[in-house]
Amino acid sequence: MKCIILIIDGMADRPTKENDYKTPLQAAKTPNMDKIAEEGINGIMDPISPGIRVGSDTAHLSILGYDPYKVYTGRGPFEAAGVGVDVKPGDIAFRCNFATVDENFVVLDRRADRIREGTDKLAETINSMKLEEDVEIIFKESTGHRAVLVLRGENLSDKITDADPKVENKRVKDVKPLDDSFEAKFTASILNKFVKNSYKLLEKHPINLKRIKEGKKPANIILPRGGGKVPSLENFCEKYNLKAACIAETGLIMGIARLAGMDVIEVPTATGGTDTDLNSIVKTILSTLDKYDFLLVNIDGADEAGHDGNFEEKKEFIERIDEVVISKILNCEDICLVLTADHTTPVSVKDHTGDPVPIVIRCPGVRIDDVKRFDEISASKGGLGRIKGSDIMNIILDLTNRSEKFGA
Amino acid sequence: MKCIILIIDGMADRPTKENDYKTPLQAAKTPNMDKIAEEGINGIMDPISPGIRVGSDTAHLSILGYDPYKVYTGRGPFEAAGVGVDVKPGDIAFRCNFATVDENFVVLDRRADRIREGTDKLAETINSMKLEEDVEIIFKESTGHRAVLVLRGENLSDKITDADPKVENKRVKDVKPLDDSFEAKFTASILNKFVKNSYKLLEKHPINLKRIKEGKKPANIILPRGGGKVPSLENFCEKYNLKAACIAETGLIMGIARLAGMDVIEVPTATGGTDTDLNSIVKTILSTLDKYDFLLVNIDGADEAGHDGNFEEKKEFIERIDEVVISKILNCEDICLVLTADHTTPVSVKDHTGDPVPIVIRCPGVRIDDVKRFDEISASKGGLGRIKGSDIMNIILDLTNRSEKFGA
Repeated sequence: MKCIILIIDGMADRPTKENDYKTPLQAAKTPNMDKIAEEGINGIMDPISPGIRVGSDTAHLSILGYDPYKVYTGRGPFEAAGVGVDVKPGDIAFRCNFATVDENFVVLDRRADRIREGTDKLAETINSMKLEEDVEIIFKESTGHRAVLVLRGENLSDKITDADPKVENKRVKDVKPLDDSFEAKFTASILNKFVKNSYKLLEKHPINLKRIKEGKKPANIILPRGGGKVPSLENFCEKYNLKAACIAETGLIMGIARLAGMDVIEVPTATGGTDTDLNSIVKTILSTLDKYDFLLVNIDGADEAGHDGNFEEKKEFIERIDEVVISKILNCEDICLVLTADHTTPVSVKDHTGDPVPIVIRCPGVRIDDVKRFDEISASKGGLGRIKGSDIMNIILDLTNRSEKFGA
Repeated sequence: MKCIILIIDGMADRPTKENDYKTPLQAAKTPNMDKIAEEGINGIMDPISPGIRVGSDTAHLSILGYDPYKVYTGRGPFEAAGVGVDVKPGDIAFRCNFATVDENFVVLDRRADRIREGTDKLAETINSMKLEEDVEIIFKESTGHRAVLVLRGENLSDKITDADPKVENKRVKDVKPLDDSFEAKFTASILNKFVKNSYKLLEKHPINLKRIKEGKKPANIILPRGGGKVPSLENFCEKYNLKAACIAETGLIMGIARLAGMDVIEVPTATGGTDTDLNSIVKTILSTLDKYDFLLVNIDGADEAGHDGNFEEKKEFIERIDEVVISKILNCEDICLVLTADHTTPVSVKDHTGDPVPIVIRCPGVRIDDVKRFDEISASKGGLGRIKGSDIMNIILDLTNRSEKFGA
């Protein structure tokens, strides 16, 4: 039996007075999600543990059966894997911005006038950089002003500070070691050289000379941040004996899937926003389902609307997911379907919170409870009770008769 | 946003046939607690874990975010801190009784005729004792026949037996080491000397000569028990970045708060019984709330009524708390209020049991469920589901927007 975990990123919310004490999910018309609730077993889930404010990354790791307290070293490694760098355990990976500085290294624009074109050429130049005999530099542009940097070699550490000052009109920061180890000092010195060198290489780069001519700020420096050592994740497919794929919109989630050894199926017209192409996403889900045992799907827009504090947008996007995506998946009868969120992003908070999320599991043989509506409060009365993200894979494997008996 | 955790000690109970299968909390009229249930999110909580019979001390430690299996070494350290001894990590602390023995060290009265006066003078004499060059003896009277003893110095251990035989008409026990270490043997020898010396110093003490003249038994010996090494608790205020205070009636809870680094606000007319001064307690809560971010409140009488097996007394005391205390706290709108018990003390058992306790959290933004009554059974249908004591601080910090995101 095939399995889908369908994660509507940040879908869960908190009630507000202005909206008649309803969450966007409660206010939304979701006949298809409700049908799944009616035909399945419902509950609430703490992605990690009650009250813990999780990121999308730590939540997904937990749901996939990894202990985020052991494997999560920062966002860098997952972002790097997400843009397609073939990172290896032990690499140190950073998120980077193409930015604009003046000759004194004061940051004028952290996003280099929101540069969109030519970053591939700039990245090519950066990639040619050679700083230390034994340290390989792998640099790759991502969307817009974003990029990733990977350092590969011996004696590297992620115990270092950021070069990115995070605000404008401040000087680029000296990267400092966070402990007394040789590795931290060595890595900090490499990073400092990398940043200075990026300026030398980019300052008069043809792409930038053209930008200046056009009245745009040059992308004349690379600012790394959020460095983390690439963790060694046990291969998901081998661990669970599942041929697994991921359909996601953001590099972060694709990166987690890649590091876990899953195939990543890209949907070129997916934007990660509420304007995303849900039709293409659901088509990809249905066509991929034929070829795999297990699908992890992440649809991102509800989280974005939550971060923007936009109740109506969040509600309407949930309704659209229900109409376009859930209505189709509903027809796949002989599968184990898990519908949930990775965390709560209340429009009233505009950030993630530690509340549990609703979850429903529809699967042949599952104990059907009497919940008939899919939302945060209805789910809490369901037959699953309150579970953790780390329980999900065990429950799925059991329901699809894939797990080994422990004991006699 | 300010937080109150209001713990009605031992409030939870089990149903009995004699009381129409109702618990005292179910039988009690509690319109104000019910209002909080209606406006909040409800659930049941295992102070440590399902079925574990906790003490008030281990339960409070767990609720405050400490692992009682790591930090709880016995009641002595918390009692000592509770009576105001400035205990330090590594000290060995004991609960003691002033008792009456005959010349053969047979215990005639473990409570020395329930002595109430003059124990401060007796304690002064005991405090002058000097047994070993490097071991400091700190002794302080508590209420009635109770006192605490603290040994401070190098090479001390809490792996020793009690001197107190716990029953009358038996000889005072030789304190014995519980392991083969030098420290245990050394501490046992000090304790034995301490007990003998206490008899020498108190036998003809003017307070005792006066007692004998008045026909009362003399408090002529000190019997230590429940020794424990003072644990090093991470400072609560620093750990959670909260200015925190505790309002409690018993030394045990005050001691936990002091060892955790919280301020302790005493209510002089609080008795710890069902005859306590609830009006003064609620006034102190409201006036203290202005000056702190976080209040831990413990009201003790319901536990006492439970230990006494008195259903009516427990029920009526709960009703009085509802009328006098909860009615006022109900009006503090912009706070995060947690109402719960630390454990179950069934009148049918007359001791603590391992049942979960009802809990309600009322806080702006919280997901309101449809529970409308505060009791053991209604709470179990609430939106919180079943949580643990150790979840509470994480949930509060999240609801009041104080926690850091783990991940991106």
